[in-house]
Amino acid sequence: MSTYELIKSAYARVSPHARRTPLLSSPFLDDIAGRRVWVKAECLQHTGSFKFRGGWAAISALSDAQRARGVITFSSGNHAQGIANAAAKHGVSAIIIMPSDAPAVKIANTRAMGAEVVMYDRASEDRDEVEKRVNPDGARILIRPYDDDQVIAGQGSVGIELAEQAKDMGVKSASVLVCAGGGGLASGISLSLEALSPDMQVRTVEPENFDDFKRSLISGKIEKNAQTSGSLCDAILTLCPGDKTFPILKRLAGAGIAVSEEEALRAMVLAFERLRIVVEPGGAVALAAALFHGNEIEHDDVIVVATGGNVDAEVFNRALAQYGS
Amino acid sequence: MSTYELIKSAYARVSPHARRTPLLSSPFLDDIAGRRVWVKAECLQHTGSFKFRGGWAAISALSDAQRARGVITFSSGNHAQGIANAAAKHGVSAIIIMPSDAPAVKIANTRAMGAEVVMYDRASEDRDEVEKRVNPDGARILIRPYDDDQVIAGQGSVGIELAEQAKDMGVKSASVLVCAGGGGLASGISLSLEALSPDMQVRTVEPENFDDFKRSLISGKIEKNAQTSGSLCDAILTLCPGDKTFPILKRLAGAGIAVSEEEALRAMVLAFERLRIVVEPGGAVALAAALFHGNEIEHDDVIVVATGGNVDAEVFNRALAQYGS
Repeated sequence: MSTYELIKSAYARVSPHARRTPLLSSPFLDDIAGRRVWVKAECLQHTGSFKFRGGWAAISALSDAQRARGVITFSSGNHAQGIANAAAKHGVSAIIIMPSDAPAVKIANTRAMGAEVVMYDRASEDRDEVEKRVNPDGARILIRPYDDDQVIAGQGSVGIELAEQAKDMGVKSASVLVCAGGGGLASGISLSLEALSPDMQVRTVEPENFDDFKRSLISGKIEKNAQTSGSLCDAILTLCPGDKTFPILKRLAGAGIAVSEEEALRAMVLAFERLRIVVEPGGAVALAAALFHGNEIEHDDVIVVATGGNVDAEVFNRALAQYGS
Repeated sequence: MSTYELIKSAYARVSPHARRTPLLSSPFLDDIAGRRVWVKAECLQHTGSFKFRGGWAAISALSDAQRARGVITFSSGNHAQGIANAAAKHGVSAIIIMPSDAPAVKIANTRAMGAEVVMYDRASEDRDEVEKRVNPDGARILIRPYDDDQVIAGQGSVGIELAEQAKDMGVKSASVLVCAGGGGLASGISLSLEALSPDMQVRTVEPENFDDFKRSLISGKIEKNAQTSGSLCDAILTLCPGDKTFPILKRLAGAGIAVSEEEALRAMVLAFERLRIVVEPGGAVALAAALFHGNEIEHDDVIVVATGGNVDAEVFNRALAQYGS
């Protein structure tokens, strides 16, 4: 079961290797939002996203016998790189099942870190079935991208840092906006904040039409998306909340927020112009919510997690050309 | 006179307000360079460049009587923003003389921070004469962008952080590559490293055809550039080394390195792809030297200062389209 105790243990293993990413801000963004906006820049994390943390936490928790068996996972690319990196550093063999429409940069980076990549078609194939085909006897340890206690614990380490950094800035209560695919990061941060900063509340943020968390938090049960492809926010296109993550967020998170793809791209461009960081579209949805959905937010301070920066140059270019000032 | 004592005092005033910018790295960049590359990401500093530090150091050192007189300076944009920001925060009136070919983003940001901007033509006008015209009776305090002891001291605070961060990474000896316009940052860092990390040596990096420091360090006297415009590396196009900065670098720095504009743009794109930071062309020359001029570098570890991130979207886009993978 996911607990703050597990997060603390994971943080002790992860933090000597992870970057303590900075909490950035800009008066220009504060002006747009009409409140103070703080951005935890996890795009500056190793492998370009917070998934480094969960990958490291999960691999480092394996016994020697488990490590010898190797690991397998599925991911659109950021968890892939997190696992590939941690596996390589721990001398563990890794197979990653990736959708064929994942950004080229994510596929290339995962391979470059020494993992074996198996592609599948997101529209016509089920990734669980692909996993069973590739790993028929279950010899390899399956590390799910979010419904895994150690992965959630690793992502939760973002919440420990965020609580400390906010305190340093004099921020005691805040809305903490976190993008949600399967909800591993949002649930991990929620558990950390419950223990460390009870006056801060996580709000999940998703792209419109992929707002399974928003709808599930309203209905109180796991709701599914009608589709799992067709957005530039590739990192957070999951079918539905996780069995482990949803109960945590149901208990601790506020209402979900959904943003348009245009808002996500505008936020990506503003992060370029005002914070000088590279954020991928899926990693920019929380910033988009802070900037453009202020009427759905209560606190005077909003903390945003900019979760990843693995964006193809072509996508970035189009957004800059369209929305750059 | 510029001393490490002055830097320590400046650091005490600046550090509560400046960001301690991270020291980033990527195995992909290490592979290209054939050695370990560390990048001090000053593009993540407030106002988007290290110039925040010098601006804050200089304004905070003024007496109340001096502050009441207001300040004036000249800058292609990063020092402009540093001074504008510090002046606004200290309630000091500021006039900034900027070349008309400065990037639009730098001019707009300087104005947005409340400074009065006076434009001049870099090719036909002398900025010292413009300053005399705008400030005929010398009522305003002139804060030169690099030939100023407090400005050098502020920039030197980068060296204090860099020495500490390198030590944390187990790096004791290194080449420290610093872009040089007037040499304020390079000289300040040199003084810090002399005191804190004597096994590290600063190397100045400039664009080809604007390699006044490289030539001056060879001849032992101040050499001038034939031109001071016509490069995308706008931040570091100065006529010649400063009277205060050159003696420091003559005593402490190794040989200068010059990189092509194409190399600077390629480094800018690699910083986007591999570090997820936005670096302007002039701020990327040191990284370019680390990646593409390895035969001119001795140490196994090279530390690069990525000095600024204020680049127009159009310039960034063209580079991404041309050199992105």
